[in-house]
Amino acid sequence: MPEVKFIFIAAVSLDGKIGRNPNETSTVWTSQEDKKFLNDILNKIQVIVIGRKTYEIAIKPLSKRRCIVLTSQVEKIQQKSDLCYFFNPDAVNLKVFISELGFSQAAVLGGTKTYDTLLSQGFIDEIYLTIEPIIFGAGLSLFSKKLSILKNLKLDYVKKMNEDGSILLHYFLTNQP
Amino acid sequence: MPEVKFIFIAAVSLDGKIGRNPNETSTVWTSQEDKKFLNDILNKIQVIVIGRKTYEIAIKPLSKRRCIVLTSQVEKIQQKSDLCYFFNPDAVNLKVFISELGFSQAAVLGGTKTYDTLLSQGFIDEIYLTIEPIIFGAGLSLFSKKLSILKNLKLDYVKKMNEDGSILLHYFLTNQP
Repeated sequence: MPEVKFIFIAAVSLDGKIGRNPNETSTVWTSQEDKKFLNDILNKIQVIVIGRKTYEIAIKPLSKRRCIVLTSQVEKIQQKSDLCYFFNPDAVNLKVFISELGFSQAAVLGGTKTYDTLLSQGFIDEIYLTIEPIIFGAGLSLFSKKLSILKNLKLDYVKKMNEDGSILLHYFLTNQP
Repeated sequence: MPEVKFIFIAAVSLDGKIGRNPNETSTVWTSQEDKKFLNDILNKIQVIVIGRKTYEIAIKPLSKRRCIVLTSQVEKIQQKSDLCYFFNPDAVNLKVFISELGFSQAAVLGGTKTYDTLLSQGFIDEIYLTIEPIIFGAGLSLFSKKLSILKNLKLDYVKKMNEDGSILLHYFLTNQP
């Protein structure tokens, strides 16, 4: 079975927020270049891990992609369609499940609760972070749970995406077990 | 009188936090390169604006610099020493005060409440943001107050500061009144 790598993908405001409120999709405020980046990378990574609320907001563009939707509403795993599973991450090991499906990479798209869950389970190997040149002032954080052991990363690259100065950062985790 | 520019300076974790808790100084987790950058820029900008709590944590290195310490503990302005003023930003106009002192730039060093106060008063012209390659999971946000009008910025430059991938971003505000 392949070893599964979890690749976090997020767009944040300059002040580190993934959105202003839980009902807002990132499509409202992210740049065209970030939307293209996201589409391109999702064409390469064959499995998406996403929280139920975020999934429901973005259900239309996601319906053609293989999604594992994290939720406490199912006991373990419930297959909803050819491509969609509802999955309780407190009851089943997500890494083992994806590996058994035959995939070696998963794109983690959020929101905060999903990022928190995978981070706390140690299921994080890379991060693609887009920083848009905008200040929200307040909003939803990328993560919300304090870590007992801080995670260190190494920057792979930083890339300017457009003239306004949207930037894309790619990091690898360095202190994975 | 000179027109005063407010230059926000902050170091954040990858997940957008300026610290893990209110009593932790950034010196614990920021890179040597960021410390040098901060020292160099404070040698050029002659006035520091800082919140009282942050000032008290960093009082030793700040004692030789001109500081305007924001606090609600004074009615208007109280001069504490040759270089230090306690200043109530709800009672007096900070921009006018700094201009009357004869300075054209102020470095805004935080914490969250100070960043919030100046942001809401529109006293923000540039941002230097260092992003350290570390995840906190939870902590203090750069800003905490929702803005009615979002602030847009333009990236001036991004610079890799070291091998681990601490990066320095410099932005100008674009929709200033």
